[in-house]
Amino acid sequence: MRNANSEHSIEIKEMDSSNNNNNPSLPYKVGVPPKQNLWTEFSTTLKETFFSDDPLHSFKHQSKCRQLILGIQAVFPIFEWGRNYDLAKFKGDLISGLTIASLCIPQDIGYAKLANLAPQYGLYSSFVPPLVYAFMGSSRDIAIGPVAVVSLLLGTLLQNEIDPVKDAFEYRRLAFTATFFAGITQATLGILRLGFLIDFLSHAAVVGFMAGAAITIALQQLKGFLGIKKFTKNTDIVSVMRSVFGSAHHGWNWETIVIGATFLVFLLFAKYIGKKSKKLFWVPAIAPLISVVLSTFFVYITHAENKGVQIVRHIEKGINPPSVKEIYLSGEYLLKGVRIGMVAGIIALTEAVAIGRTFAAMKDYQIDGNKEMVALGAMNIAGSMTSCYVATGSFSRSAVNYMAGCKTAASNIVMSIVVFLTLQFITPLFEYTPNAILSSIIISAVIGLIDYEAAILIWKIDKFDFIACMGAFFGVVFASVEIGLLIAVSISFAKLLLQVTRPKTVILGKIPRTNVYRNIQQYPEASKVPGVLIIRVDSAIYFSNSNYIKERILRWLTDEEEQLKAAGLFDIQFLIVEMSPVTDIDTSGIHALEELHRSLQKRDVQLVLANPGPVVIDKLHASKFASCLGEDKIFLTVADAIQTCSPKFAEEV
Amino acid sequence: MRNANSEHSIEIKEMDSSNNNNNPSLPYKVGVPPKQNLWTEFSTTLKETFFSDDPLHSFKHQSKCRQLILGIQAVFPIFEWGRNYDLAKFKGDLISGLTIASLCIPQDIGYAKLANLAPQYGLYSSFVPPLVYAFMGSSRDIAIGPVAVVSLLLGTLLQNEIDPVKDAFEYRRLAFTATFFAGITQATLGILRLGFLIDFLSHAAVVGFMAGAAITIALQQLKGFLGIKKFTKNTDIVSVMRSVFGSAHHGWNWETIVIGATFLVFLLFAKYIGKKSKKLFWVPAIAPLISVVLSTFFVYITHAENKGVQIVRHIEKGINPPSVKEIYLSGEYLLKGVRIGMVAGIIALTEAVAIGRTFAAMKDYQIDGNKEMVALGAMNIAGSMTSCYVATGSFSRSAVNYMAGCKTAASNIVMSIVVFLTLQFITPLFEYTPNAILSSIIISAVIGLIDYEAAILIWKIDKFDFIACMGAFFGVVFASVEIGLLIAVSISFAKLLLQVTRPKTVILGKIPRTNVYRNIQQYPEASKVPGVLIIRVDSAIYFSNSNYIKERILRWLTDEEEQLKAAGLFDIQFLIVEMSPVTDIDTSGIHALEELHRSLQKRDVQLVLANPGPVVIDKLHASKFASCLGEDKIFLTVADAIQTCSPKFAEEV
Repeated sequence: MRNANSEHSIEIKEMDSSNNNNNPSLPYKVGVPPKQNLWTEFSTTLKETFFSDDPLHSFKHQSKCRQLILGIQAVFPIFEWGRNYDLAKFKGDLISGLTIASLCIPQDIGYAKLANLAPQYGLYSSFVPPLVYAFMGSSRDIAIGPVAVVSLLLGTLLQNEIDPVKDAFEYRRLAFTATFFAGITQATLGILRLGFLIDFLSHAAVVGFMAGAAITIALQQLKGFLGIKKFTKNTDIVSVMRSVFGSAHHGWNWETIVIGATFLVFLLFAKYIGKKSKKLFWVPAIAPLISVVLSTFFVYITHAENKGVQIVRHIEKGINPPSVKEIYLSGEYLLKGVRIGMVAGIIALTEAVAIGRTFAAMKDYQIDGNKEMVALGAMNIAGSMTSCYVATGSFSRSAVNYMAGCKTAASNIVMSIVVFLTLQFITPLFEYTPNAILSSIIISAVIGLIDYEAAILIWKIDKFDFIACMGAFFGVVFASVEIGLLIAVSISFAKLLLQVTRPKTVILGKIPRTNVYRNIQQYPEASKVPGVLIIRVDSAIYFSNSNYIKERILRWLTDEEEQLKAAGLFDIQFLIVEMSPVTDIDTSGIHALEELHRSLQKRDVQLVLANPGPVVIDKLHASKFASCLGEDKIFLTVADAIQTCSPKFAEEV
Repeated sequence: MRNANSEHSIEIKEMDSSNNNNNPSLPYKVGVPPKQNLWTEFSTTLKETFFSDDPLHSFKHQSKCRQLILGIQAVFPIFEWGRNYDLAKFKGDLISGLTIASLCIPQDIGYAKLANLAPQYGLYSSFVPPLVYAFMGSSRDIAIGPVAVVSLLLGTLLQNEIDPVKDAFEYRRLAFTATFFAGITQATLGILRLGFLIDFLSHAAVVGFMAGAAITIALQQLKGFLGIKKFTKNTDIVSVMRSVFGSAHHGWNWETIVIGATFLVFLLFAKYIGKKSKKLFWVPAIAPLISVVLSTFFVYITHAENKGVQIVRHIEKGINPPSVKEIYLSGEYLLKGVRIGMVAGIIALTEAVAIGRTFAAMKDYQIDGNKEMVALGAMNIAGSMTSCYVATGSFSRSAVNYMAGCKTAASNIVMSIVVFLTLQFITPLFEYTPNAILSSIIISAVIGLIDYEAAILIWKIDKFDFIACMGAFFGVVFASVEIGLLIAVSISFAKLLLQVTRPKTVILGKIPRTNVYRNIQQYPEASKVPGVLIIRVDSAIYFSNSNYIKERILRWLTDEEEQLKAAGLFDIQFLIVEMSPVTDIDTSGIHALEELHRSLQKRDVQLVLANPGPVVIDKLHASKFASCLGEDKIFLTVADAIQTCSPKFAEEV
């Protein structure tokens, strides 16, 4: 314990002498908050909704010039952290940058195939976006580039519109269009400070969605892994399995399988080592590159490509060509691009923000979600103009980045430079890389997305969340990525709406030897007060639930009276509604209270309210319900109400 | 006060001897509710959501035969109330039935025109549906038939698809199709017990929508009222006004205006009389019929129709022809019919359920919303097969029905018989009825839908509700009925979601000379506890707000610490989160608490929880967070927590 309690001059305010409670035997009157003017009220709500993190806090009381500098630093955080950058930090960033580069190059080539694009587009997307992010982003640990789930999502959505093989050029144009609008969506959400919207994708839904996507992606890799030439375009497990077993007799290529399986075992073993000892994190990080080098060399000397082993064949040399003119800004594909871009952009955001938050919490620094979205948006807009497709933060590479000791976003710059060198000089060397290796690398990468421990925890904590999680999972696995997403979002919303439609109402009882009234289900030892029924309403009373709450309260009363009658006991005379959890009430809610009051009067029961909050008491007065009910029927606590309704009982216990 | 408190043997339970509180100086332990098994939990939730009114209550402990009778009575309440029907009741029903019949006949003819249908279809819809409702409905006061708003909505939606003049037959077929699916929608909602869904149309939105629709309908009447021949098909105020003033010079017909205006004054005066004295309620009720008779007679003898006064001309004689075969059950119009039917059906439901609830509350009887929906659905399905369009409960006629002293739904049967006789024998007499009269009748009827007093009350109580109300109003007036509806629904949902996204968090202080901790904004005299920050979270903690709540709490702490630093006072050592209003928490919420705990540890502040509810404490244990935080950091009340955190303060005051 540190020093406290010795002085508290400002905390303990003198009691207002105008208060009605100079006589302590009177119950304490429920406070009515000072009337706010309309504008204050409105602007407070607005501020809490859109500027809850008070982003302009540091701009206050500063000179114009200083404000300008702060503004530039806010948009480009590199000018903030860059000023304290030193050799020690650079060492960390260099090592981690090199590590994630070695991991991202083989992954990029594979992910581009998931998006039905040529391999170099994956590498392009690991060159420009990370550079832009390094200047604008505020996360220190995120590793930017193409990721498996977004690549799959984009590939699925795009091929529904255009055939990626027949119309490769149009397909690519639509991909850039979608990337452009993904960026616009992300930046717009950030600028309009609507970042909170992505919170509507619940954690549980994301866990299920990611696991489902991981399985779908792994299944897609069976094509490369088994060397199958004719493969379904659908992503659901049934179609894929039919495709796989339908070609079992003459479609599988055993040389491919041997290469793929050998290196998959190697990769998984490397992963296992990395998990065992945190110091050996670099083993799984460089294993993919080693696999690529070894297998490429092996194919090159044995000429296995003549025995049916499929190889990459050709990767365009040179850095990103400009693609501004390829973006559709009119015509029928514009709208499709917008739609696909919005979906892919939001999923990409979800992933990046989740990563950003996770690592920020681990290193205890703050991330401004909205600013982060602007950075991601800007990076994708820039990407769409330089032949990149949607990039975002990668779970696996960010973790490696963190473990390799990155200090700032500069590790992304290092990675970007390595990718640049690769594009300029090394791509021809990938010619003999077998596709099976890329499949093995992707399989071993996406396995990490299946977070079964999280799913178990979700099951333990919240069954409804688990349904959302499984809904998303099975939706992705058995139908498609979009359907899984739709299920996840719908279940999440249904849960929120259910809460405001069917809130809990509970009976309270007095806890022995205290003056505290609590839920009798939670505290079975709590005792009911004779002649009084105390009901707590556990939600704001809104149009969506006002009618239900009214009827539920009346039903509690009926049930209770039936029980009492059966036991030959006396009637209920007071119905106390404990309103502590009722944070707000609207017109429908007030009407419901009025109707409740009227029904109770007909039954000869007096309605009593306990502890209405500031908003509620204000509205009770505005609607004149407070005076209709009687001001003396509104109490500060249930205990005060009992003192008046059942004074004998209050003294007795 | 009645007899109470003398005995309460079963209420006051003996204290559980296993409780840890035999030593009263120890704080009372937070109760963990008994573990429910999964199925119980699931079925309880299901029951509360869909069967909250316990509809099978009366079926329990009954013989099979009795259950069958109860079942029939449940579907056809007429067999329940019919058994106690007597002459006194019949007298009331006869008078009220005749009154609403005299009111409905002229209204029906006018409303049919709003739906772009020939006048007899309005009368048809006042014949079959009320009959069906009388057998199945549970409201005693509702008057069934076509209503203005639904007629307008249906007319607008239908004419977007088919031209009602050129393709009258197809138009009618689509109208019956929509009616059929409106009935299916209503019955399905009732059978699946999804009736609560209509609660999502908030009271405020309905007030605005109704007022907007009333103005739109009144504006549409200017066509008949001014005798304009060329009139816009749009319903927005701008188009209508342009139409009206564009034809001012040569399109208006002064004879029509004189007739219309004279009778409009008469009708409004009758309304005024009815309002002045409740006994004279029958004056406004029969005024429309009198107007029709007088004006028809006047036109007949003066032959004003030759001077440009438009008349009804022809109403088909005879009762409803069957229309089963005219319903589209395949083809392109099927889907359109389904969509229009769903919208019209839900709006019709909203109106009927609101009326049913209002009058049930006035006479203090119960209405089962879901059963009511089945009745309304069955009535519209039957209607669609007998040339009726969507019928529902009418506000104005139900009020007249109530005031005329109706006792049961039999008044609808009486009305239905009168309409039957009208169709069989009197329709030719309407030949010379001027359209201007129908317009006047509709204008005077829809004026009652503009409930400006409710709008003022909404403004006073809840500004957000007022925005929803005005959004619906202006949407209907300036755009169209559908857009107004869409705006209303969107704003209502946005409000619900805002509540779960940006819940309130408030600072608590101790109220002088009590042991009660309350919001210091509501109770400015409450004093903060030195070294302790008490924050109440005013909502369930879900994925949609968990991150916000965590960050908001940390910001409260930062602000408080800055203030204390500025005042040279001591640091915060304990952060108490009062969880009384936190009715539920999900996985994301638990994660947020964990992150909060970790952040606080880094700042050397101890997290303390007060009064977690049954669900929350259960999940805190399931997730192991309770033991991670320390069981001794979870208290029953804030006062208990303060006793431990700041014992000196607790004693002092």
